[in-house]
Amino acid sequence: MKTYFDCMPCFIRQALDAARMVTDDEQIHEQVLREVLRLASNMDMRQSPPLMGQQIHHLIRKLTGVHDPYLEMKDRFNKLALEMYPELKERVETSIDPFETAVRLAIAGNIIDLGVKTELAESEIEKTIAQSLTDPLDTEAMKEFRNATTQAKDILYIGDNAGEIVFDRLLIEQLPCENITFVVKTGPIINDATMEDAQIVGLTDIVNVIDNGSDAPGTILESCSQDFRRRFNEADLVIAKGQGNYETLSNVNKNIFFLLKAKCPVLAEHLGCEIGTVVLRRQSNIYLEGVKNENKGIFGKV
Amino acid sequence: MKTYFDCMPCFIRQALDAARMVTDDEQIHEQVLREVLRLASNMDMRQSPPLMGQQIHHLIRKLTGVHDPYLEMKDRFNKLALEMYPELKERVETSIDPFETAVRLAIAGNIIDLGVKTELAESEIEKTIAQSLTDPLDTEAMKEFRNATTQAKDILYIGDNAGEIVFDRLLIEQLPCENITFVVKTGPIINDATMEDAQIVGLTDIVNVIDNGSDAPGTILESCSQDFRRRFNEADLVIAKGQGNYETLSNVNKNIFFLLKAKCPVLAEHLGCEIGTVVLRRQSNIYLEGVKNENKGIFGKV
Repeated sequence: MKTYFDCMPCFIRQALDAARMVTDDEQIHEQVLREVLRLASNMDMRQSPPLMGQQIHHLIRKLTGVHDPYLEMKDRFNKLALEMYPELKERVETSIDPFETAVRLAIAGNIIDLGVKTELAESEIEKTIAQSLTDPLDTEAMKEFRNATTQAKDILYIGDNAGEIVFDRLLIEQLPCENITFVVKTGPIINDATMEDAQIVGLTDIVNVIDNGSDAPGTILESCSQDFRRRFNEADLVIAKGQGNYETLSNVNKNIFFLLKAKCPVLAEHLGCEIGTVVLRRQSNIYLEGVKNENKGIFGKV
Repeated sequence: MKTYFDCMPCFIRQALDAARMVTDDEQIHEQVLREVLRLASNMDMRQSPPLMGQQIHHLIRKLTGVHDPYLEMKDRFNKLALEMYPELKERVETSIDPFETAVRLAIAGNIIDLGVKTELAESEIEKTIAQSLTDPLDTEAMKEFRNATTQAKDILYIGDNAGEIVFDRLLIEQLPCENITFVVKTGPIINDATMEDAQIVGLTDIVNVIDNGSDAPGTILESCSQDFRRRFNEADLVIAKGQGNYETLSNVNKNIFFLLKAKCPVLAEHLGCEIGTVVLRRQSNIYLEGVKNENKGIFGKV
């Protein structure tokens, strides 16, 4: 997905919110603001929005010297989600359709995204869980996703945020495939999950966890490691969580299912849905046709 | 009032909204966006927000070649307000306190501001009128304003937008002072009233109307004509309508009353009120003390 004109005011607001979260120093707020305005004025709009997200947060890190400003928040949401886990796990197992319940909860967990707004109340997570369990969900996509997970021999599950990955664990535990690799970011960026988070929530005990060689808040394949790209190409099914992964992978020729909460107006319009929608979306048929014809992966032979 | 960091994302959004209103050409939207981002990245934040507003709209005019993009909207709101005028006039005259009713209606008219958002439904104007007639209004400021208008020998009434000036007419008709000068912009900027609008709504028939020598969406004294500045200094009472005039005159040493609807969060915070508040505010006492001691006006002898 390209960057839309309407992303621009939102980048500026996000940069200011993030700078304020990291420091009270108004001089740094101003430096961040001016530099992000300058970057935005020259941005290649064909790039996806997470590239600007990455630049904003690199800048804040450089100016403040704070390596991982969201560390405390990530710990808080990991802990909170782990506290919820036993009850949610029981909910999945006692439901009529444990697979669908797990899918819905995995999507609900995507509310823990501090890129769109820097604050999130516990009550909002609870509300999102309740809504996600009852909101309409694309039944055709659900049927296709169920089939795809049953047939898949090699699943790459690209995670999104700390805390949210506990909700992903619920879905992973329902997947029949034995060969699942979970992906985290190599370095801290916003509240995206890293290897430490995967260890904290116990994902490393149940699946193979790798990092993607990048700290973009999405999956910008060109800037990921060659190891990750090879894994991406080998997998016969990719499950991609969250807005950032949709924004960076929505035009990649691959068998991908996107699971996310639509939280911004530009992305909601791109998906053709309302803000707040529980989204389970198969990669567009245009790209799937390509996959059928020539399954070489987007970088050809790696 | 200086420009706040939070004005920046809003400038970018406003520029995009305005560019889209004037043309469907996406290349021009992009040019406007990039140029405004560049201007914003270098902006002197000590300047008031209307300076950026002026730059944005000059840029759109330059890129599109459209001299007065809001002309049709100005005509529409002048016409609409003139249709409302007889009923509102009767409402003023039959009310228990015609002066206060006229003040409240003049403030209600400030909803016709296409700088903050480019669209305004008729129903919103009606809703604003109803609210403005009943919402709480600073009683101390109202008392002071009533006294000030009774004592004034020379009132300068600085108008804001087309359509809104019909509501100003209701208040002007209640002012006991015989020496009133009404001020409009010299050239078109957003939907701000110009001499043509004053003529259309009949203001020129009841008071002296002058232009300020500028097309900034506010009153940036340094860029107004010397004639206007002389008039400004001579007046013993200034009535300033709307956000733009508050933003540009709130730190000017002069006996000013500001009448406006607070429509943006930054301005509302500066005023210490909620968005949507009906505001009647006397110029801060800090500046009034200055006026008492040495009534030379802000530019000294002109």
